Amino acid sequence: MTRAHIVGAAGYAAGDLIRFLDSHPDVELVTLESESAAGTQVRDAFRSLAEIRTFDGAGSALAACKSGDIVFLAGESEKARRLAPQFLASGARVIDLSDAFRVGTPNAVYGLPEIYRDQIARAQLVANPGCYPTAALLALIPLGFLADRIANVIVDAKSGISGSGRSPKLASMYAEVDGDVRAYGIPSHRHGKEIEAEMRALGIVAPFVFSPHVVPLTRGMLADVYVIVREPLDEDELRAAFARAYGGNPFVEVLDGTRVPYLPALAGTNRAQIALSLRGGAIHVMTGIDNLGKGAAGQAVQNMNIMCGYLEESGLGHRAAIV
Amino acid sequence: MTRAHIVGAAGYAAGDLIRFLDSHPDVELVTLESESAAGTQVRDAFRSLAEIRTFDGAGSALAACKSGDIVFLAGESEKARRLAPQFLASGARVIDLSDAFRVGTPNAVYGLPEIYRDQIARAQLVANPGCYPTAALLALIPLGFLADRIANVIVDAKSGISGSGRSPKLASMYAEVDGDVRAYGIPSHRHGKEIEAEMRALGIVAPFVFSPHVVPLTRGMLADVYVIVREPLDEDELRAAFARAYGGNPFVEVLDGTRVPYLPALAGTNRAQIALSLRGGAIHVMTGIDNLGKGAAGQAVQNMNIMCGYLEESGLGHRAAIV
Amino acid sequence: MTRAHIVGAAGYAAGDLIRFLDSHPDVELVTLESESAAGTQVRDAFRSLAEIRTFDGAGSALAACKSGDIVFLAGESEKARRLAPQFLASGARVIDLSDAFRVGTPNAVYGLPEIYRDQIARAQLVANPGCYPTAALLALIPLGFLADRIANVIVDAKSGISGSGRSPKLASMYAEVDGDVRAYGIPSHRHGKEIEAEMRALGIVAPFVFSPHVVPLTRGMLADVYVIVREPLDEDELRAAFARAYGGNPFVEVLDGTRVPYLPALAGTNRAQIALSLRGGAIHVMTGIDNLGKGAAGQAVQNMNIMCGYLEESGLGHRAAIV
Amino acid sequence: MTRAHIVGAAGYAAGDLIRFLDSHPDVELVTLESESAAGTQVRDAFRSLAEIRTFDGAGSALAACKSGDIVFLAGESEKARRLAPQFLASGARVIDLSDAFRVGTPNAVYGLPEIYRDQIARAQLVANPGCYPTAALLALIPLGFLADRIANVIVDAKSGISGSGRSPKLASMYAEVDGDVRAYGIPSHRHGKEIEAEMRALGIVAPFVFSPHVVPLTRGMLADVYVIVREPLDEDELRAAFARAYGGNPFVEVLDGTRVPYLPALAGTNRAQIALSLRGGAIHVMTGIDNLGKGAAGQAVQNMNIMCGYLEESGLGHRAAIV
Repeated sequence: MTRAHIVGAAGYAAGDLIRFLDSHPDVELVTLESESAAGTQVRDAFRSLAEIRTFDGAGSALAACKSGDIVFLAGESEKARRLAPQFLASGARVIDLSDAFRVGTPNAVYGLPEIYRDQIARAQLVANPGCYPTAALLALIPLGFLADRIANVIVDAKSGISGSGRSPKLASMYAEVDGDVRAYGIPSHRHGKEIEAEMRALGIVAPFVFSPHVVPLTRGMLADVYVIVREPLDEDELRAAFARAYGGNPFVEVLDGTRVPYLPALAGTNRAQIALSLRGGAIHVMTGIDNLGKGAAGQAVQNMNIMCGYLEESGLGHRAAIV
Repeated sequence: MTRAHIVGAAGYAAGDLIRFLDSHPDVELVTLESESAAGTQVRDAFRSLAEIRTFDGAGSALAACKSGDIVFLAGESEKARRLAPQFLASGARVIDLSDAFRVGTPNAVYGLPEIYRDQIARAQLVANPGCYPTAALLALIPLGFLADRIANVIVDAKSGISGSGRSPKLASMYAEVDGDVRAYGIPSHRHGKEIEAEMRALGIVAPFVFSPHVVPLTRGMLADVYVIVREPLDEDELRAAFARAYGGNPFVEVLDGTRVPYLPALAGTNRAQIALSLRGGAIHVMTGIDNLGKGAAGQAVQNMNIMCGYLEESGLGHRAAIV
Repeated sequence: MTRAHIVGAAGYAAGDLIRFLDSHPDVELVTLESESAAGTQVRDAFRSLAEIRTFDGAGSALAACKSGDIVFLAGESEKARRLAPQFLASGARVIDLSDAFRVGTPNAVYGLPEIYRDQIARAQLVANPGCYPTAALLALIPLGFLADRIANVIVDAKSGISGSGRSPKLASMYAEVDGDVRAYGIPSHRHGKEIEAEMRALGIVAPFVFSPHVVPLTRGMLADVYVIVREPLDEDELRAAFARAYGGNPFVEVLDGTRVPYLPALAGTNRAQIALSLRGGAIHVMTGIDNLGKGAAGQAVQNMNIMCGYLEESGLGHRAAIV
Repeated sequence: MTRAHIVGAAGYAAGDLIRFLDSHPDVELVTLESESAAGTQVRDAFRSLAEIRTFDGAGSALAACKSGDIVFLAGESEKARRLAPQFLASGARVIDLSDAFRVGTPNAVYGLPEIYRDQIARAQLVANPGCYPTAALLALIPLGFLADRIANVIVDAKSGISGSGRSPKLASMYAEVDGDVRAYGIPSHRHGKEIEAEMRALGIVAPFVFSPHVVPLTRGMLADVYVIVREPLDEDELRAAFARAYGGNPFVEVLDGTRVPYLPALAGTNRAQIALSLRGGAIHVMTGIDNLGKGAAGQAVQNMNIMCGYLEESGLGHRAAIV
C-alpha cells in the first residue's frame, strides 16, 4: 500500500484525484489538506462522494508525511514552489499539478508518460502537465520523425471551464460562459510556453501559434493541431507513425476513418482520442481529453502508478456514461 | 450466467442498459436488436462503448431466446405489446421499459422494488416504471402511514431531455431546449395516470396535480412533491418514516438537514437522493434521480437482479464524476 | 428630459437598466456609478454596449444629483439603506432594486405596477420587487376575488442564475450550475417573506410554501403557482378574472388554451406570460418572465415611466430573438 | 414600400427574417409560405412573435408575386433551384439563402456586401452566403493586398447548432450537442468549397484547410482564421488594412488591443466583430457573428436594402441583451 496525501484538496482536480484514488486498490488516502475548507465535510464539496470525512487543516500533510509517501500538490504554483522542497526533504515523492516546475526545472520530470515514462518511474518530483499541453503534445509526439520538414504548428484548443479552477471569478460564472466561445490568452498564454518547450524537446522548432478558447461545457477539451509540412506526406505513413507511438497505450486511442473525438465518452476518464487527416497542405490532428482527467488528475494518478510500479490502469478504469 | 437480450437497443435507455450489463459479472449480453440500426456498429451509436460489435436485426432476439433468458424491451409501447407475449411463450422473463403494461395489466408486476420487491422476484413480466413515477413515488411511499390525513398531492417535476428518447423530434432539439423551462403535458400526461394508480395502491386517494417540465440538461430529474396534510405533523415522525422505508436500501439516500439532491452526483447511476422539509402546511419531499438510471435502465437492471436472485447492486456500482 | 443616475452600475440588472434607458427617448443617463469598476470602460463590462464611456466613482451620483432626478439603486441592500435617504434629501426620487425597503417600510411604495400603479406615480421611494415575488404575485393578483376560499398556496419557481448577481461566488460558477436543478433557500428564503407580505395585502392568508430552484440558464424564470381552493371553481370564471386583471396591460399576456410561457421569447424584455389550468383540486398558474427584465431592470424602468408620467412602454419595446 | 415573400418560412433563418422585416419601415411581408407548416399559427413556430397570422401553403408566394417584389428563398437547395427561375420570370428579385447558387452560377451575385456591394445593387438573383464563408471571408477580405505572400490558410470555426437548421435530426438533439465540441465535415465540407472559390476571387490561391465544429450553443459563430505569410509583416500595416476595409461599415467592428469577439453581444443582430493579432509566423484573425444574423437572415435583409436602395441598416437596428 502507498500512503498518499493531497494538498489543495478542495479544487476540481483534487476532487477527481480523490475519486480515482478511492477506487485504487493499492493506495491509502491519508491526508486531504485544504486551507480554505479545513474542518468542513468532503462530501459537501464533492457531492458525488459519500464517505463521511472532513478536510484536514494547513500543515496536516507535512506533519503526517513519511518517507516513501506520494504527495499530490493540487493548489497554486506559488504554494507548490514553497512546499515541494519540504515534502521532498521528508523523503516523499511529489506530483505537482500546478505549473511551478513544468518549464526549465532541472530536478523535475515532465509528467507526460507518452514521452517520459522511464524518467517518471525514477523521479522524486513530477511536474504534471497542463491540460492544453497534454492535448497538444499527444498530437505532436508521433510527428517527431518529420520534425525537420515541419514549417508551422498551430494549436487551436477548445476547453471546458473547469480547467480554470474552482476559485470564484467572474470569467468562470455561468452567465459569462453560457452562449459564448471565448478566445483568450492572446497574444500569449503560459501554456503556450510549456507546449513550445516540449515541442523543442521533440525536435520541432517551427514557428508556433497557440490559441486557447473556453466553450460552454464543464469538462472536456478538444485540441485541433495543424502542422504545415514542407514536403508531401502519405496518409498511410502518418497513420503508421501514430500506430507506432500509441500501440498498446491503454489510454490513447487513435480513431480510424473519419471518426472524431467524442468528449462525453472521455468525461471522468483518463482516456484520450486522436483523429487524423491530411489535406490542404497540412496534417490535422485532433486530440480529445477530459481536461480534469488525462489533462490533470487522471494523468497524475497514471504518473503515481508508474512511480510506484503499479499497473498503469490501476484506479483509472472509469467509464463515461452514454450521453 | 444469465443470458440477456435487448430489443430496441439503439435508444438512450438501451445505451445505459448495455453499459450496466457490460460490467455485470453474471450476465451475457446475447442480442442487441435494433430495427433501425441493424448492421451498424454499436460504438458509433454509443461512443463511450469501445467493443467492436454490430446491432442485430429485427427478430434476432426472439430467434436466439431460450427458456430462462431475460429480455429487456427498450422500444415503443406498441412493439412491447406485440412482442412480450412471444418472449414469454418462449420461456423467457421480460422487463419492459415502455408504458405498455404499467397501468391495469394483471399479469405484469410494476417494477418499483421499493414497493414490489417480492412480487418482482417471482414475476415473468415486469413493467419497469417511468422516470416521473419513480421520482414521485419514492417521495410518497413512506407516507402511506398518514394516507387518510392527506388532503392534496402536487408533483412538480423537472426533467432532462434524454427522457424524451432518441428519435429525432423538434421538441428535443438543442435550439428548442436551450434557454427554456418548458412545462408540458397540461392538462394531462400519461405518467400522471401511472403515478395516480400507484398512489391509490399506497392508500392515497387525495386530489392530485402532476406538472412535468423539461429543463436544459441531458440527464437528471428533480421531483418536488408537495403533500398537504389535514392535521399537524412532527418533522421527527416524518424523518422516522423515511428512515424506516429506506434504511438499508442500497440506492435510496435520505439526506439529512438542509442538504438537497445534487443531480450530477446521480448521473449515470441507479441512485436516488431524497430531501425532506415540513413548512407552510405541507410536507415537501424532493427526489433526485438520473432519469435514465433509477428512472429507466438502472432500475431495469435492479429488477433483473431481483428476478435472478443476484445481489441487488450487481452491475450497478457506477459512481458519477465530481462535476 | 429626465436626468437618471445608476448606483451599482456594473451588475447584471444595471446592465439591463443601461440598455433600456439608452433607448428611452426622454432620459439622459447622467451617472453610472460603480465603486468596483470606477474608471474602467462600460463596454468592457457590458460588451453588447458600444458607447465609449467609463464608470463613475463612488459618490459621483450624489454629487451630480438634482431635485427631480431619478436614481436607480442597483447595488446591495445595506448600501441602499444608507444612500436612499441622502438622495431623497437632495430632492431626487429613488427606485431601489435591492430588498432594503420591500417589506414593512412605510415610506416606500412596493413597485409592482399591477397592484400599486397609482401609489407609484406619486412615490418618492419605490421598492422594486424581487424576481420571484414578481412572478408569483402576477399569478395571484387576479385571485383576490376568491381569497377566502383559498386553502393553500405553493410556489415552485425555477430561475436562471443571473438572478444571483454578478459578484463571483462558487454557487454561480458554470461548473456548479451546469447539469443540476438546484433547490435552495429551504426552509426559508427572504423572497418568501416578500411574497407572503403582498399576498396578505391581496387578502390571501392561506398557508404558503415557497420553493425556489436554480436551473441551467442565464436569464429567465418560470413560477408554477398551485392554489388549492375549498370550493369548486369554473375555468371560465378563472379566465375571466385574469382577463379583467390584465386586459390592456402592455406587458402581461394571458395565454389561451394549453399554450405555456416560452422563456426565450421573454429574454431581454419586460414581458410576462401567464398560463392557466384547473385540475386535481387546484388552480395552476404559471408565470414566465425574464428575471432581469420584468423581474428587475425592466420593471424599474416601467416604474420610472409611471413616476414621470411617460408612456409605460417607453424604452421597453425590445423584442427577443426567435431562438 | 417593397412587397416581400418568404418561401420556407418555418425554419430558423426564416424566423429571423420575419423578425427583421417586421420592424423594417419600407417592407410589407406579403407571403409566409411553408409547405410543412401551412395553416398553422406563425406565433406557434416563432414564439417571440405575437402577431396572429398563419403560414401560407405551397405555391402561395408565386401566386401573389408581382414584378418588383423581393422573394427570400429560405428552404432547401433543390427547391431553390426549381423555384428561383419561376420567381425571376415573374419579374421578382430573388435572395436565396441556400447554397444552390453560391458557387459557379454566372447569373447569381454572391451576396457578401463587403465584396460585391455594387453588383448586389443591380442583381436579380443574390446567393446569400453561408455562415461559415461569411465569417471566414470577413477575416480574409482585407488581406487581398498581400495575397501573393500567403503560404497557407487555415479556418477553424466554431458554430452554434441553429446553423444546422430546424428539421429534426439526431445530430441536432440536445443530448447529442450538450457536453461535446463536435468536429465534422472532415475531409470536406460543402462550405469549404464556397470559401475557397471566394478566396480565389480575392487573389488568394494558397493551400487551404477548413475545419468546422459544433459547440453547445444555439446561436453564434467564431471563426479563427490563421494565415501563414512568407515574409514578415507589420502589425500596424495589418491594422491599417482592416481599418481601410471596414471603416464606415455599419456592421463590421474591428476590435482594438486584445479585445475579442463576444458572441452574446452579436446574438440576434447583423453585427460582426473582428480581432487581430500577429504571432508565431501567422496572422490570426477572429471573426464573431450570429450564424443566423450576419450569417444568414441579417445579411439577407442587408442585401435586400442594397437591392432596393434603402439605408443599409434599415430593419437591422437590433441590439443584443447584456448577458
